[in-house]
Amino acid sequence: MAPDIKAYLARKRAAVDKALEALVPPATTFPPVVFEAMRYSLFAGGKRVRPILAVASAEALGAGTAGLLPIACALELIHTYSLIHDDLPAMDNDDFRRGRPTCHKVYGEATAILAGDGLLNMAFEVLADQKRLKAVPARRMLDIISVIAQASGVFGMVGGQIVDMQSEGKDVDIPTLEYIHTHKTGALIRASVRVGALYAKANEKRLKALTRYGEYAGLAFQIADDILDITGTQEQIGKDAGSDLKKGKKTFPGFYGIEESRRRAREVAERAIASLREFDRKADPLRELAKYIVTRVN
Amino acid sequence: MAPDIKAYLARKRAAVDKALEALVPPATTFPPVVFEAMRYSLFAGGKRVRPILAVASAEALGAGTAGLLPIACALELIHTYSLIHDDLPAMDNDDFRRGRPTCHKVYGEATAILAGDGLLNMAFEVLADQKRLKAVPARRMLDIISVIAQASGVFGMVGGQIVDMQSEGKDVDIPTLEYIHTHKTGALIRASVRVGALYAKANEKRLKALTRYGEYAGLAFQIADDILDITGTQEQIGKDAGSDLKKGKKTFPGFYGIEESRRRAREVAERAIASLREFDRKADPLRELAKYIVTRVN
Repeated sequence: MAPDIKAYLARKRAAVDKALEALVPPATTFPPVVFEAMRYSLFAGGKRVRPILAVASAEALGAGTAGLLPIACALELIHTYSLIHDDLPAMDNDDFRRGRPTCHKVYGEATAILAGDGLLNMAFEVLADQKRLKAVPARRMLDIISVIAQASGVFGMVGGQIVDMQSEGKDVDIPTLEYIHTHKTGALIRASVRVGALYAKANEKRLKALTRYGEYAGLAFQIADDILDITGTQEQIGKDAGSDLKKGKKTFPGFYGIEESRRRAREVAERAIASLREFDRKADPLRELAKYIVTRVN
Repeated sequence: MAPDIKAYLARKRAAVDKALEALVPPATTFPPVVFEAMRYSLFAGGKRVRPILAVASAEALGAGTAGLLPIACALELIHTYSLIHDDLPAMDNDDFRRGRPTCHKVYGEATAILAGDGLLNMAFEVLADQKRLKAVPARRMLDIISVIAQASGVFGMVGGQIVDMQSEGKDVDIPTLEYIHTHKTGALIRASVRVGALYAKANEKRLKALTRYGEYAGLAFQIADDILDITGTQEQIGKDAGSDLKKGKKTFPGFYGIEESRRRAREVAERAIASLREFDRKADPLRELAKYIVTRVN
């Protein structure tokens, strides 16, 4: 029987939240405001998809994951930094995120920029902390840092966001849309799965299979997000419905329509699951995660 | 005889520039604009003080420095990221830097924010690249990443910039001014010297001495910068003279006057030099560097 994915997600999310709480200094730390702003965005009810993917990936290989949690948290720090910067007035100019005013709406632009910078730096502080991560050999830790930095940098998220910014209101072709999606969202999701695999000492073949899983899962996630932006209520998605359309952003449904996009999301999720065919039952949470991503919109 | 510090600086600067050129993808790399913006700020005639301090620190311990150059470059990537973000309209709102329009003036705010993010990420990509840095053992590399991430994060530069932003136009006391200086500028200068020392396998005692040198050198550098902001011409300092005053920023001369600030800068530089008393002639470039920092204003 398939594991109860909702219970699994709730359990893992609680573990990630607890680890993040222990990792990030309290809001009263000097200099104040920057810690308050970092925590405001970090503890805004995120689903912790990336840390959970890292954990589920390591579990699929039979590894214990207690030592992986700080690394998984670093992925969430980077994800949160990217949300804060993407929401800025000069960027997507979003007022709401996860149902609450965005970081710069509450703390002002300067503090939001610096809170983002602080989170990004903190991710690497955590990843280089050999006391905290003493169970992971140093060479493997450098591999993990490399995977994460590449995914969040100019050849990953930053690149995706730049192309997204430059495409607003323009006639964008499908390769450009795909570039934006695979870089802006896909890169860190793929990296999350890879990081779990590296932590668990995956051999080349299994690392490849999990990487493929991560690529498909990232794509399914993005198609689902695009669909939800149109069909979801503000309550469901935590920000204005239809905000992509309003900004003239090209999305999957914009090219293919809602129904065809839903079909593609399902197909991509099935491919993610098919990538895991040589894995045993321990990969069931990854399989259920792929299904879950698209059931949100089907 | 003391080494000719100007020739030394010119030689090291050329080596750093060459290494940076090889490290950062060309401006034509996709996605364009972000690479153009990164390179615009990176190759704007910076003095490369931080990379040179790292190199001089390793040389003081008798180490060869070819393998250190990529690490030294990462320090400059981080320094440049911080300049781009600090110049933003929401922050210091500076139109000129090093005699040219600031990054956001040329490329717009969104691209400037992302160019900064890209540079910061790239620093860690470089630092985690075991192929490029194969001569440095992995554990030592993690120590180096740790020192750098801490210096650039919330307990370093980001913290300094937050307190600086919050202090503008307010009545600031001397401890607050010192916090701003030691974090906003001092932290990365101190880290640069430490990184060179770690690369060169300094023992505890020598690491401590070099750290102290880095702290005094950073302070001297900041006092000199404050003085130059008042006494320098626009040509000399590459931005509007008196810009600190106009923004209501508290500076050393604001508290102590120009003459007393000059005296303090000299005194601090002497302390930096005194920290090196157990080092031989190989530390002469560091000694000359400390003198050079304050002769710019004396």
